[in-house]
Amino acid sequence: MNTAALYHRTESEHAYLYEKDHFHIRLRTQAGDVAQVELLSGDPYTIEGDKWYENGKEMRKIASTNLHDYWLIDTHEQTNRMSYGFHVTGRDGIEVFYSDQGVYPYDEAFLQEASFYFRIPYIHEIDAFKAPEWVKNTIWYQVFPDRFENGDASIDPEGTLPWGDKENPSRDDFYGGDLRGLINRLDYLEDLGINGIYLCPIFKASSNHKYDTIDYYEVDPGFGDKETFKELVDKAHERGIKIMLDAVFNHLGWHSPQWQDVLKHQEASKYKDWFYIHSFPVDNLGDLTTEELEDVGRVNYETFAFTGHMPKLNTENQEVQDYLLAIAKYWIEAFDIDGWRLDVANEVDHFFWKKFFKETTAVKEDIYILGEIWHSSQKWLNGDEFHAVMNYAFNDNIENYFLKKIITPSRMVSGLNAQMMLYRQQTSEVMFNLLDSHDTPRLLTKAKGDKELVKSALAFMFAQKGTPCIFYGTEIGLYGEMDPDCRKCMIWEEELQDQEMLDFTKNLIAFRKHYQKILTYGEVEWHDVRDDEQLIGFKRTLGNESLIFYFNQDKDDAFLDMLPRDAVLSLEAATVHYDNQAVLHENGFVVYYHVDTEAEKRMRTEQKRQRTKERMKRMKVQSSHLVRN
Amino acid sequence: MNTAALYHRTESEHAYLYEKDHFHIRLRTQAGDVAQVELLSGDPYTIEGDKWYENGKEMRKIASTNLHDYWLIDTHEQTNRMSYGFHVTGRDGIEVFYSDQGVYPYDEAFLQEASFYFRIPYIHEIDAFKAPEWVKNTIWYQVFPDRFENGDASIDPEGTLPWGDKENPSRDDFYGGDLRGLINRLDYLEDLGINGIYLCPIFKASSNHKYDTIDYYEVDPGFGDKETFKELVDKAHERGIKIMLDAVFNHLGWHSPQWQDVLKHQEASKYKDWFYIHSFPVDNLGDLTTEELEDVGRVNYETFAFTGHMPKLNTENQEVQDYLLAIAKYWIEAFDIDGWRLDVANEVDHFFWKKFFKETTAVKEDIYILGEIWHSSQKWLNGDEFHAVMNYAFNDNIENYFLKKIITPSRMVSGLNAQMMLYRQQTSEVMFNLLDSHDTPRLLTKAKGDKELVKSALAFMFAQKGTPCIFYGTEIGLYGEMDPDCRKCMIWEEELQDQEMLDFTKNLIAFRKHYQKILTYGEVEWHDVRDDEQLIGFKRTLGNESLIFYFNQDKDDAFLDMLPRDAVLSLEAATVHYDNQAVLHENGFVVYYHVDTEAEKRMRTEQKRQRTKERMKRMKVQSSHLVRN
Repeated sequence: MNTAALYHRTESEHAYLYEKDHFHIRLRTQAGDVAQVELLSGDPYTIEGDKWYENGKEMRKIASTNLHDYWLIDTHEQTNRMSYGFHVTGRDGIEVFYSDQGVYPYDEAFLQEASFYFRIPYIHEIDAFKAPEWVKNTIWYQVFPDRFENGDASIDPEGTLPWGDKENPSRDDFYGGDLRGLINRLDYLEDLGINGIYLCPIFKASSNHKYDTIDYYEVDPGFGDKETFKELVDKAHERGIKIMLDAVFNHLGWHSPQWQDVLKHQEASKYKDWFYIHSFPVDNLGDLTTEELEDVGRVNYETFAFTGHMPKLNTENQEVQDYLLAIAKYWIEAFDIDGWRLDVANEVDHFFWKKFFKETTAVKEDIYILGEIWHSSQKWLNGDEFHAVMNYAFNDNIENYFLKKIITPSRMVSGLNAQMMLYRQQTSEVMFNLLDSHDTPRLLTKAKGDKELVKSALAFMFAQKGTPCIFYGTEIGLYGEMDPDCRKCMIWEEELQDQEMLDFTKNLIAFRKHYQKILTYGEVEWHDVRDDEQLIGFKRTLGNESLIFYFNQDKDDAFLDMLPRDAVLSLEAATVHYDNQAVLHENGFVVYYHVDTEAEKRMRTEQKRQRTKERMKRMKVQSSHLVRN
Repeated sequence: MNTAALYHRTESEHAYLYEKDHFHIRLRTQAGDVAQVELLSGDPYTIEGDKWYENGKEMRKIASTNLHDYWLIDTHEQTNRMSYGFHVTGRDGIEVFYSDQGVYPYDEAFLQEASFYFRIPYIHEIDAFKAPEWVKNTIWYQVFPDRFENGDASIDPEGTLPWGDKENPSRDDFYGGDLRGLINRLDYLEDLGINGIYLCPIFKASSNHKYDTIDYYEVDPGFGDKETFKELVDKAHERGIKIMLDAVFNHLGWHSPQWQDVLKHQEASKYKDWFYIHSFPVDNLGDLTTEELEDVGRVNYETFAFTGHMPKLNTENQEVQDYLLAIAKYWIEAFDIDGWRLDVANEVDHFFWKKFFKETTAVKEDIYILGEIWHSSQKWLNGDEFHAVMNYAFNDNIENYFLKKIITPSRMVSGLNAQMMLYRQQTSEVMFNLLDSHDTPRLLTKAKGDKELVKSALAFMFAQKGTPCIFYGTEIGLYGEMDPDCRKCMIWEEELQDQEMLDFTKNLIAFRKHYQKILTYGEVEWHDVRDDEQLIGFKRTLGNESLIFYFNQDKDDAFLDMLPRDAVLSLEAATVHYDNQAVLHENGFVVYYHVDTEAEKRMRTEQKRQRTKERMKRMKVQSSHLVRN
C-alpha cells in the first residue's frame, strides 16, 4: 500500500457537518491501492481502556481521480464529540492505522493510544457551512446591461450607437442597454425558464462595463435610476426570479471622487490611505485613452492587474471597510437584492470578506455570496466568506475536454472529481457553474461554431452538482471572441435568433428544474468512461431514483448502438425501457430516468447484508491476529 | 515517482506570508522519492505567452518524516501577486508539472495554460499570522495556585490542610496556596530564570483547581483579592516576568449564579439559553459528592466531558459571547495581563474564538492567546484564533521516545517534523512546549524516577522551536502520578529540594535565553539519527552560527566516544574544538556551539555556485526536450 498518499485534514472539507446529525468524514488514498477503509471512532472521554477500535465502520469510495480514491462516511455522534482514526487495508493485504500522529501498523500498541486519534472536539452548528436553500433550485442568466436591451432611449449616453451596429463591438462603444430594457424582457426570461439574474455592475461608472465605479450609491444614469431598479427587483420577484448584483470592491474607478481627491491633494488628501500608494505625487494618467490606460505597466500605486485607471482599494483600512460594508448592506436593505457577486474577490483580503459575510448575512440571512475566483478556492469556502465561487476551475475540465479537446474523457472526470473533493458537499451544491461569461470567448465560438458541441457541453454542465448559468444570448446562438467581442448586443428579432437552440435551452432548463433534487443531491457515479470511444456514462442517484447519462463525441447518433447493454444490465438489472424512455436526447448525448424496481431494491439490500457479514467475519480474524502487549 | 503523494494546499501552512517580503511556499513529496523541486512562478497578469516556466527557482528540502519530504522556498513577489506551480523531478528521472489542476506531464501543452497554476491572488499583511515577539524569548513556569505557596494563612479556606500534609493529595484537599505566596516567591522565580508565569485559574470557584468557575469577575477569596493580583502583575512586570491567566470559557461551575438560576427557575430562567439543555427539568445532581459528580454519565444537558457539575456554556448564544468577551477584556484592561490560556479551547466554537481574538488583540496588541488543545490544531492556528496551543501533540513524540520508549529515535524525529509541518514557521516559533502539567503525571514519574532521563527530555524540548514551560516543582524533583497526585504541594525546604536538578534547570534556562535567536529561528537539521545506537544528532543553524546537539539514551557518558567525527567533519569541516567547547553536557547529551570559519563560508558559497551551474545546465537540456505543439 502507498501509505505516503494517505491524506486527511480534520475540520476541513475532509471532516465537516453536512447538516444536523450528518457529519461527513473523508479520506484520500492512492487510486486503486486500497481495498477497504474503516472509521474507528468514539467519544474522546470514554475511549481509554475500551476496545472501541474493534468496531470499525466501513467507509464508501465516492470519487476517484487519476491519482486518488476518496472515501466517505456519513456519521453521527451522540455526544457531539469524536475521536477517530482510519483502519486502512491495502489491496496487498497490508493493514495500517492512520491517525493524527501519522501512519502506524494496525497494532494494539498504537490503537489503544487515545492521543493518537484525530479529534472533532465538539460539533457546533454555528461553525457549519450553510448555503441558502433557494440557490439549489436556481438557473442563472447573466446580463451585461449595456448590451441586453435598450428600453429607454431618452437616457442613452452621449455617442450611443444604434443597437447591434457593429459586428464586433469595440472596447469603448455604448449601445444604450438599460434596466427598463431588462424589465421589458422579464417575460422572455420567465418563458426561457431561468429564475436568477446575475447582473453585471449597474453603479455609476465611466466605462460601458461599469467595473470602474464612480459612485456605489447611484445607478448609472445611462442604465436608469433607483426607482427603475426597485421596479426591476419587485417585478422579478413577482415572477420568482432572484436578482444578484455585482460588487466591485477590489478597486475604484479613476473618476471616483476619492481618487480624484488624491490626484488633487496628493499626500494631503483624506483618501490617501484608501489606496496602496507607494510615493507621491501619484502617477497621473489622466490624458491617456482607455485603451492606453489598460496596460501602463507598473505605476506608483497598486492597481487591478496593470490597469492604471483602476486603483486598488486598501481594504485593510477600517474606513474603507466601513464604507464598502455600508454599501453592501444598503442595496440589500433598500432594494431587497438576493445576492452579491464579488468582482476580483480573490485579490481582496480574507479579513474583509469575513466581515462582509457576517454583516450581509445578518441583514438578510439567505443572501447568496458569490466570489469571482477562477482557481481552486478552498480558503474562501469554509462557511465564513463566500457560499460559492464562479466555478471556472471545475468547468475548465469540461471545456478542456469538450471544447479545447486537450484532455481525455477520463482526465476530465478526474479533474471534476478532484475539484469536487476540494469542497464540502453543501458547497458543491450551490457552486456557480458556467461555460462562458463577459470575461471569456462565447461558448459557440469556443466550440468553433459546432452547435451540437455547445448542446453537449451545456447539458453536461447542467447534469453536474451546482447551479448553472447561461450567459445572455448563448440560448439564441450568439457568438464572439474574448471581450469586447463576447459582449455583442442581444438579438431580439426572432428570425435572427437560433430558435432551435432556444428550444433546446428551454428543454434543458425545464429538465434541470424537474429533476432538481436528483441533480443537486444525487450521488455521481461514473460507470462507463471510455477514452478510445469518447464515451462517458454516468449516473446521478438519489434514493431509488436515477438519471443515467451517456455522452459521446465520436459517432453522433450512432453512439446509441454502442451503449453497453450488458454493463447497463449489470448496473441496473433492468435495461429495455432505456431505449424508450430517454428524457433528453440530442446527437451527442442521451439521458434516461430510472426508478428501482422492487426486485432491484431486494437485490441491493441483500448485497449490503452480505457485505456486512463478510466484514464482521474479517474483523474477527483481524482482532485475533492483533499483537497483544 | 509517486505522484499520488504530492501535496500542496494554497493559502495554508503550505503558502503563507512569514514576514514582509518573505513568502513561504512548501511542497510535500514522498520520502526519498524526489530529486529536485523547482517553483515556476510569475505575475498572473503577465504570464500568458511568456515562457516564464523556464525560469524555475530551486526549492530546498527542509524536513523529512518516515513518509514524506517537505520542500520550501522563501520568495518575494514585486506585485504582491503570484501564479505558481511545481516542476518536480523524481529520482527515477520522471518530470511532472504539479499545479492547481493536478499532476500533468512536464510539457508545454500544460505549462502554458495559465489557468492550471496555483494562485496567491494578492498578499495582504492583514491576513498574515503575527505572533507576539516577546513570547519567543519566554520560558514559562506553570503555577497551580493552591499548591505553590501559602503567603496569607488568614484567607485559607475552611478545612485547609497543613502544607504538604499528605504524600498523595486527594481530589478535594485544600492547602492554602495563594497569590501572596506567589508574590513572596517571585525572587525565587527570577533567580530560576523564568520570565513568564502561566497561572491556573484564580477566579472564584468551588474546587481547589478552580476550573468550575462561580464568578469570573472575582479572585477566589482563598487566593486573595484584586489588589493582591494587581500587585502580583506589577511586581512580576518589574522583574520582566509576564503573567498569563487561565480562562475557562467552555463551561461554568455548578455553583455559578447562572446555573443555580436554571436549577431554580428551570425553563423560566433567563439563563436557560446559556447552556445546551435538552429537556426540563434539568437533572439535579446537587446532592452528589465531587467525586461522584465527575462521572455521572450522560445528563440532560451538555457538560464538560461527563462531568455533571460543569455545564457546557452555549457560546453560540450572543449573550454568552458578550458576557465572556467582556471578561476577557476586563482582566487585560484593568490588570494588564499578558496572555490568556484557554481551557478546553477545542470544544468551544471557532466563531467565538475569532471574535475573542479580534477583541482581545484590539485591547492589547501583543497579548498571547494560547489554546489548550492536545491534538493537531491547524484549524485554530491560521492567525485569527490562537497564537499557539499547548503543544502536547508535538511533545508526545518526545515522551513516546524518551519516556514511554514505544517509538524509535527516527520515528520521534518523523513525528516532530510532521507536527512542525502542520504549521506556519511563525506559529512554531511561539508554540507552548511542555512535558508535564496539572493534567498529566509529573515528568519525573513518567521517567520512573530516572533523573538523567528527565534532564535529557527537558534539554531536548528546550532545543526545539517553541517556548518551553516548566511545571512548578519539576525543577526541584517533584514527582506524582496523574492528577490529583501531580498537584502536590511545592517543597520549599532547600534540604528537601533536589538542588542538583535545580542547578541543571537554571543552566538550561540560561542556555535557552543565551541562544534564544538560534533556538527560535534556527533551522533544524537532523544529521545523525541512529535507532540501533539510540543516537540523535541534530543542528540548529542561524546564519553562520550553529548549536550542535547529540543525545544518547544507551551508553551514558561513554556515548561521546562514539560521536561520528568523520560525519561531523564532513558536516562542519571543523571538529576538534567540539570536545573542548561543549556549552551544555550531561550524561545523556552534549551541546556544542559553532561559528563557521572563513574557510567554511567559502566552501559553502562554492557549493551553492556549483549547484546553480548544474541546474542551469539541466534546464537547458530539459527545455530542448519539450514537446512543442
